[in-house]
Amino acid sequence: DSPFDYSEHPHRRRNPLTGKYVLVSPHRAKRPWQGSQEDAPSDNRPEYDPDDYLGPGNSRVNGTVQNPDYKDTFVFDNDFQALLSDTPDGAVGNPDNDDLLVARAVKGKCRVLCFSPKLNVTVAEMSVPALRKVVDAWVDEYATLSKLDYIAHVQIFGNKGSMMGCSNAHPHGQIWSSSWIPEAPATELANLAGYKSRKGTHMLEDYAKLEEEVGERVVCSNTTFLAVVPFWAVWPFEVMVLSKKRIPSFESFGEQEKDDLADIYRRVTCRYDNLFTTLFPYSMGIHQAPTDGTGQDVAHFNMQFYPPLLRSATVRKFMVGFELLAEAQRDLTAEQAAVRLRNCSEVHFNDAKK
Amino acid sequence: DSPFDYSEHPHRRRNPLTGKYVLVSPHRAKRPWQGSQEDAPSDNRPEYDPDDYLGPGNSRVNGTVQNPDYKDTFVFDNDFQALLSDTPDGAVGNPDNDDLLVARAVKGKCRVLCFSPKLNVTVAEMSVPALRKVVDAWVDEYATLSKLDYIAHVQIFGNKGSMMGCSNAHPHGQIWSSSWIPEAPATELANLAGYKSRKGTHMLEDYAKLEEEVGERVVCSNTTFLAVVPFWAVWPFEVMVLSKKRIPSFESFGEQEKDDLADIYRRVTCRYDNLFTTLFPYSMGIHQAPTDGTGQDVAHFNMQFYPPLLRSATVRKFMVGFELLAEAQRDLTAEQAAVRLRNCSEVHFNDAKK
Ligand SMILES: O=P(O)(O)O[C@H]1O[C@H](CO)[C@@H](O)[C@H](O)[C@H]1O
Ligand SMILES: O=P(O)(O)O[C@H]1O[C@H](CO)[C@@H](O)[C@H](O)[C@H]1O
Repeated sequence: DSPFDYSEHPHRRRNPLTGKYVLVSPHRAKRPWQGSQEDAPSDNRPEYDPDDYLGPGNSRVNGTVQNPDYKDTFVFDNDFQALLSDTPDGAVGNPDNDDLLVARAVKGKCRVLCFSPKLNVTVAEMSVPALRKVVDAWVDEYATLSKLDYIAHVQIFGNKGSMMGCSNAHPHGQIWSSSWIPEAPATELANLAGYKSRKGTHMLEDYAKLEEEVGERVVCSNTTFLAVVPFWAVWPFEVMVLSKKRIPSFESFGEQEKDDLADIYRRVTCRYDNLFTTLFPYSMGIHQAPTDGTGQDVAHFNMQFYPPLLRSATVRKFMVGFELLAEAQRDLTAEQAAVRLRNCSEVHFNDAKK
Repeated sequence: DSPFDYSEHPHRRRNPLTGKYVLVSPHRAKRPWQGSQEDAPSDNRPEYDPDDYLGPGNSRVNGTVQNPDYKDTFVFDNDFQALLSDTPDGAVGNPDNDDLLVARAVKGKCRVLCFSPKLNVTVAEMSVPALRKVVDAWVDEYATLSKLDYIAHVQIFGNKGSMMGCSNAHPHGQIWSSSWIPEAPATELANLAGYKSRKGTHMLEDYAKLEEEVGERVVCSNTTFLAVVPFWAVWPFEVMVLSKKRIPSFESFGEQEKDDLADIYRRVTCRYDNLFTTLFPYSMGIHQAPTDGTGQDVAHFNMQFYPPLLRSATVRKFMVGFELLAEAQRDLTAEQAAVRLRNCSEVHFNDAKK
């Protein structure tokens, strides 16, 4: 009998940031390939469309506001914010008493950030200087929102592609700032703090060092950042971009860090698009220190990409059934996914055609 | 200023089974209705299709095995199991030492259960006696798999609809039995045990009583079971079916409980189909006692339905961006969803047409 080998045998892997396990079924990657390799979708997005409610000079979704004739990035309050700044304080039930109906009033502010005036570009196709403007806007928003007295946390994220619920193809992201630290960043901070107090070192500094040494899960890197398919990845081609040295938040970013983030953001998304010759869908989100002053001593800046595609531009992984009711599951190993992404070019297929 | 009202103001609600909060944004339900009420999809599913690899007498997906000419239910080993019975034991890393690469070999057995020989029926359209055969098969599988020495937990679930990753329209579900207790049921058991030790009563008995008294989140009920949109629902029309009195698992089901489960399974899914006059997609899963002997004193049988549809047969809720990276979010309140489901008929739209 062959000994246990995680590239061959079913196993669980543990995510130290969440404390949760994912089931990995490597032998299933040998299933007959039922999906197909797609051709690049015919790409006739116009540069400008008068009906694009995120376009420069256009009317927004509610019809009453007009966008300025912006030249690079543009930020505004979401027209249908999930959070409001003026919710009355209040609560129902007490979790410490094991009450079963527990609700807490919350406040916040939701912003939208357009990445470019052009409708027909994606992050993967943008230049590093143009993406540097996006990074600058994030840094600004993080600083401005953190000064609001009712804001404790700023969640920067983006949904790309209709498969990921993005209803407008215009390149944009969102910023939801909130009066509390949401579940996922709160759990991550608690686990980072626990590791620090037990080991004396920072978890993600140790992890970045380990991954650089081992190499097999690395996608690409630059001076400040490392992009890896994390050992505990759940989504088929999940990628985590983390700073090699701990940086708590945008507050500590200098010129180099800002340039390097723009650089690696382009390179990771470009590899994604080239993987299946498609405008690769994903949700992206940034985890960093909350703005309420907590976590400064443990928070470690990272950017997570959760893409649903599995085998082609149209064959996706579904997080359903067992995954929703019992435990996350994947077939392809993180190591196999990393090889595939390492083999992708950093020249976008649309530019290569030119 | 009006005081905090959870039917009006943004808030978080706590799920006592997971310990996690969900963000609720009731004011957003006032967004312009962008989806449309669809007509019933033209329904020309044949009763039998020779290419249906789950059909009676047909060849399975791998081409080598033939299904028997079954008359009601049919159970077999999944042709591409995510778990295997013969994985060598082994492990990498130790979570107690804060190792960053932690993997554990696991074993299991994955089964598929066909609910009916007919391709053109869904659970919502099946009769209670036919669904009773499905319940009997679940009870049998739970008992048989629990006798395997390497099995600690039996997860019964089903994905319905291509939107939920179900690649075959033939009515069927899955059973993944495993050598460990997966994340979600393990967390639920820990929270049920904590409540019991602190309060002396059973959480879900207290909850069923409370919901029956309040009434506003109840969908329907029978002697044994209550179907509610739980206070902490994440999916727009999420439903939990729970036994009013604690039943640890199928092991304790008598004739009445089996009949009542078949009855409420049909009634909940029929209301779902009637809500948007469509074959309503969902993932369904059963939480009950593990088969390794643990949790017998606290486990409480329940069946969860996680459906993605939000406003019509084609407008869905996406669990993306903020939801994946930060915290679950919903617009419609649980109370609003329950009213909608209570107003649905328990006669299927396909039968009403006849
Ligand atoms: O086994 P199936 O039906 O091919 O697959 C479906 O259910 C599984 C269990 O929830 C998931 O892992 C798959 O992503 C889903 O498509
Ligand atoms: O705000 P949008 O782009 O309309 O909506 C999108 O992102 C939100 C935040 O992740 C989600 O709540 C929605 O389900 C999704 O469709």
